[in-house]
Amino acid sequence: MDIAFATGNNGKITEAKKILECFKVHIIQKDIKLIEPRSDSLEKIAIEKAKQACEILKNPVIVEDSGLFIKSLNDFPGTYSHIIYDKISDSGILKLMQDVKNRSAIFMAVVAFASPKIEPITFNGEQKGTISFESKGSGGFGFDPIFIPGYETQTWAENPQLKAISSHRKIALEKFAEWAKDNI
Amino acid sequence: MDIAFATGNNGKITEAKKILECFKVHIIQKDIKLIEPRSDSLEKIAIEKAKQACEILKNPVIVEDSGLFIKSLNDFPGTYSHIIYDKISDSGILKLMQDVKNRSAIFMAVVAFASPKIEPITFNGEQKGTISFESKGSGGFGFDPIFIPGYETQTWAENPQLKAISSHRKIALEKFAEWAKDNI
Repeated sequence: MDIAFATGNNGKITEAKKILECFKVHIIQKDIKLIEPRSDSLEKIAIEKAKQACEILKNPVIVEDSGLFIKSLNDFPGTYSHIIYDKISDSGILKLMQDVKNRSAIFMAVVAFASPKIEPITFNGEQKGTISFESKGSGGFGFDPIFIPGYETQTWAENPQLKAISSHRKIALEKFAEWAKDNI
Repeated sequence: MDIAFATGNNGKITEAKKILECFKVHIIQKDIKLIEPRSDSLEKIAIEKAKQACEILKNPVIVEDSGLFIKSLNDFPGTYSHIIYDKISDSGILKLMQDVKNRSAIFMAVVAFASPKIEPITFNGEQKGTISFESKGSGGFGFDPIFIPGYETQTWAENPQLKAISSHRKIALEKFAEWAKDNI
């Protein structure tokens, strides 16, 4: 099955292709311009963007939105993770987390599917973890060098295999793929 | 002259009333729900919101958008100042600025006016300054406790009189008022 993925982020495409190929879902990247609504809800953002993408492409499409929600920073950077990464990167987050004891964080992802016939449907994925004390590793992208999933000891950037099996995006994409095989 | 000001921020209303009353412009607060577009341009955001507000109110209206653009943080928090203030406040900015030598920053404001008959028009104001090394003062709102305008030595929160005569918002609102007396 071919499905359009509206994103300009090549890292997301690489990750999604690997995850979805064993479900026989073939991703076609569509780097189209979508208006990013401001919201604290990933779900609202993904639904709105899926509607826009479907209107432009006139075809079934998925979009994916994700973010790093750090508990002691009131869920910062949250739904603004991408923009904030571009401004202050992982070193900025580490500065904000200096002397902060509670380092709990959640990486969350929402995949939204829309087609000309079906109203947007969403699929969620999350991975709990902690913010490391220093930036480590060169794999992945974004905040991967400062995120340690679950009870592991390495960041996602240090251990991309770990990310490959446990990422928030993987969980959301697999839920979508399971649904897609019966419904598309 | 009566003019609607679409904002939920009471601090902005208080400031605008003081500034505009000597131009005989009477502000009426309208706390209506507007969709905040994501953009790095204050001007684009203000124009878009003025259009929305005018469509809802069916009357002449102004909106105002402002932000603190810190040079060494790639213009962070910029157009996201309000959201970021709610998450990490001025203490977060001070953490990000630890050991940063270049403390230059600009407070920028854009007032956009729209009416059912006139396409949105914008008026800009800016105030250059520096980020202080500690949070000082209790006047004003938002990032005022860490912003020292021009070559002064006190923050806007320490010296609200200084803000009253030199703020980015005042400059933009006065430009609007000057224009309004001949055009509305």
